[in-house]
Amino acid sequence: MVELQTRDVFAAMRTDLQRVEARVEQAAAIDVPLVSSLVLDLVRAGGKRLRPLILLLAGRGYNYDLDALVTAAAGVELLHTASLVHDDTVDRAALRRGKPTLNTILSSGAVILLGDYLFAQSAILAAATGNPRVVAIFASTLADICDGQLQEMFNAHRLDQTREEYERRIYGKTASLFAGAAEMGAIIGGAPEAHVAELRSFGADVGMAFQIVDDVLDLREGAQQLGKPAGNDLRQGTVTLPTMLYSAELSGSPVDAQLLHDVVAGEIDGPDVDRLVGAIRKSGALEQAMAVAADYAERAKSHAEIVADESTRRLLVDIADLALARSS
Amino acid sequence: MVELQTRDVFAAMRTDLQRVEARVEQAAAIDVPLVSSLVLDLVRAGGKRLRPLILLLAGRGYNYDLDALVTAAAGVELLHTASLVHDDTVDRAALRRGKPTLNTILSSGAVILLGDYLFAQSAILAAATGNPRVVAIFASTLADICDGQLQEMFNAHRLDQTREEYERRIYGKTASLFAGAAEMGAIIGGAPEAHVAELRSFGADVGMAFQIVDDVLDLREGAQQLGKPAGNDLRQGTVTLPTMLYSAELSGSPVDAQLLHDVVAGEIDGPDVDRLVGAIRKSGALEQAMAVAADYAERAKSHAEIVADESTRRLLVDIADLALARSS
Repeated sequence: MVELQTRDVFAAMRTDLQRVEARVEQAAAIDVPLVSSLVLDLVRAGGKRLRPLILLLAGRGYNYDLDALVTAAAGVELLHTASLVHDDTVDRAALRRGKPTLNTILSSGAVILLGDYLFAQSAILAAATGNPRVVAIFASTLADICDGQLQEMFNAHRLDQTREEYERRIYGKTASLFAGAAEMGAIIGGAPEAHVAELRSFGADVGMAFQIVDDVLDLREGAQQLGKPAGNDLRQGTVTLPTMLYSAELSGSPVDAQLLHDVVAGEIDGPDVDRLVGAIRKSGALEQAMAVAADYAERAKSHAEIVADESTRRLLVDIADLALARSS
Repeated sequence: MVELQTRDVFAAMRTDLQRVEARVEQAAAIDVPLVSSLVLDLVRAGGKRLRPLILLLAGRGYNYDLDALVTAAAGVELLHTASLVHDDTVDRAALRRGKPTLNTILSSGAVILLGDYLFAQSAILAAATGNPRVVAIFASTLADICDGQLQEMFNAHRLDQTREEYERRIYGKTASLFAGAAEMGAIIGGAPEAHVAELRSFGADVGMAFQIVDDVLDLREGAQQLGKPAGNDLRQGTVTLPTMLYSAELSGSPVDAQLLHDVVAGEIDGPDVDRLVGAIRKSGALEQAMAVAADYAERAKSHAEIVADESTRRLLVDIADLALARSS
C-alpha cells in the first residue's frame, strides 16, 4: 500500500522535480576542473529529494508559481547537500549513500571550501526568489541546522540526556529544513497565514519522523542498505531515541548498563558495539521508537488537512507515509 | 599624515562602529557553553573593521538609514569572520592576529560547524535588512569568496600563473567583500545607480590594494607584527604578486630560479624558504608590488569623487590610504 502511494507522489511530481534537478545541477557547476565532476556526481547521487518535494507540494494547493517554487526548492536541496558535505567531514564518514564521501578523495580543506561554495549557491537561489521572507527562513534554517549539529557534537558521549534535548537536536539538524521547505513553499504560493503555519508544522513533523526513522535504521540495517556501518551513531557517542528508550528499561541489569555506558563514553569499540546493537535490537526499543515516529507522521497528516485541494492533500499524506516507510 | 587621517576616520565613525560591534556580538552569541566564550573572543579580537566601515561610509553620503546600515555592516563583518574561521582550518594556521586559532583549541569538525554557524548568523543579518538586492549581493559575494579560495587552493604549487589568474583569486577571496560592502551601503542609502556602481568599484579597488599589501606583508614582516610566520604563503605553495614579479626578473640566474621552483613546488622547506624570502626582499619586488597596490588605492580615490558630501568623500579617501598604510 505504502509502495503504491510512494510511486504515486513521484509520478505526479516528476516533471516539476526534473526542473528542480536541472536547476540544482546548473547551480552546482563549479569552475575548478579537478572537482567539478565530483560535485556533479554528489549532487546527482541525491536522495529522494523529499525536501524539494515538500516545498513544491506546500505551494501546490495555492498559486502554483512554478518558477519561484523551483528556484527555492533547488536552494533547499543544495543547502541540504552542503550540510551533508560538511557533516561527512565532521564525522569523517567514509561512505554516503553507498559511495565514497568527498573527504575520502579530497583534502579536508578542499571539502570545507566546496561545502561553503554549495552554501553560497543555495543562498544565491534563495535570494533569487526575491522574497525577503523566504530568504529570512532560509537563513534561520541554516542557523537551526548548525545549532542541531553543534548540540549533537557537544552532547556526544553523554547518557544523561533528556528527550527534550534529543528533540531539539533532531529538530535542528533535520526537521528545521523540512519545516522551512514547507513554509517557503506555502509563502511563495501565497497561502493564507494560518495555512503557512499549518504547513510549516506539517514539514516539522515529517522531519521529526524522518530523523527518528534514520536513527532506528542506523541500528537496524547493515552497511549495504544505508551506505554506513550499523551502529555508526553509537560509535560516535551519539545517543538517539532507540538508545534512550533501551537505557530507560535497563535498571535491573548492571552488566548491560555497563556495556551501554562504556560504548557511549567511547571507552570500548569494535565487537562490543555490535553486541550492544544486538541487545538494543532485541529489547523492542526500535519498535518503540518507530511508534514515536509514526505518531509524528500522523500529526503531520492532521496538519495537511488544512489544504483544500484534495489531490495535493493526498500527496502530502503520501510524503508523511514515505518518511516512515523508506528503506524498511 | 596618513596616521592623522587614520585617526580621523575612526574618530568620525566611532559611535556608529560601536553599534555595529554590539550587533556583531549579539549575533555571534551561541548556546554551546564550551565554545560561546571562544566565539566571542574571536569576534572581539576583530581587526580594523574596514569592511563595515566601508559599508557605513558608502551609505553616509545619501540617506543615512543607520539601523539598516548597521545590520548589513554586522552581517558583512560576520561573513568575514566565518570565512577566516574556515580559512584557518583549511590552512591549518596556528595563529590569527597573534592569537591561537580556533582549530588549535577545538576539533576541526567543531570549527567547521562554528564557521557554518557564523555564516548562518551573517545571512540572518543580511536577510534582516529586508532588501532583496542586499541579500543577493551578500549571497554572490560568498560565492566569490569561495571561488577565490578554491582557485588559490587548486592553483597552489604552480609558478606558471598569469597576473589575471592572481587578480581573479584576490578579487574573489578579498576584494569581492569590500566591493559588496560598498555596494550594499550605497543601495541601503538609496544612492543613484551610477553612484552605486562607482562605490562598488571603490570597494573593489580598496580590496585589491588591501590584499596586495597583505601579500607583501607576508614576505616583509616577522611573526610579531602579523601573527603569522613570514613567508607563510610560499610555505603553502601560494604564488602572490611579489613572487610573480621576482620570478619575472630571474631569467639570468638558474640557481635562484631553481630555489624558487623547489619552494613553490613544496619540494624543500625550512631555511630554504627563509633564503628565498630574503632574495625576494632584496630584489625590489616588494616595492614594485606596493606600487601596484598604490595604483589601486589611487583608482579607489577617483571612484570616491562621485560622492558629493565632502566629509564623506574625505573619509573614503582615508580608507584607501589606510588599506595601503596598515602595519607598515
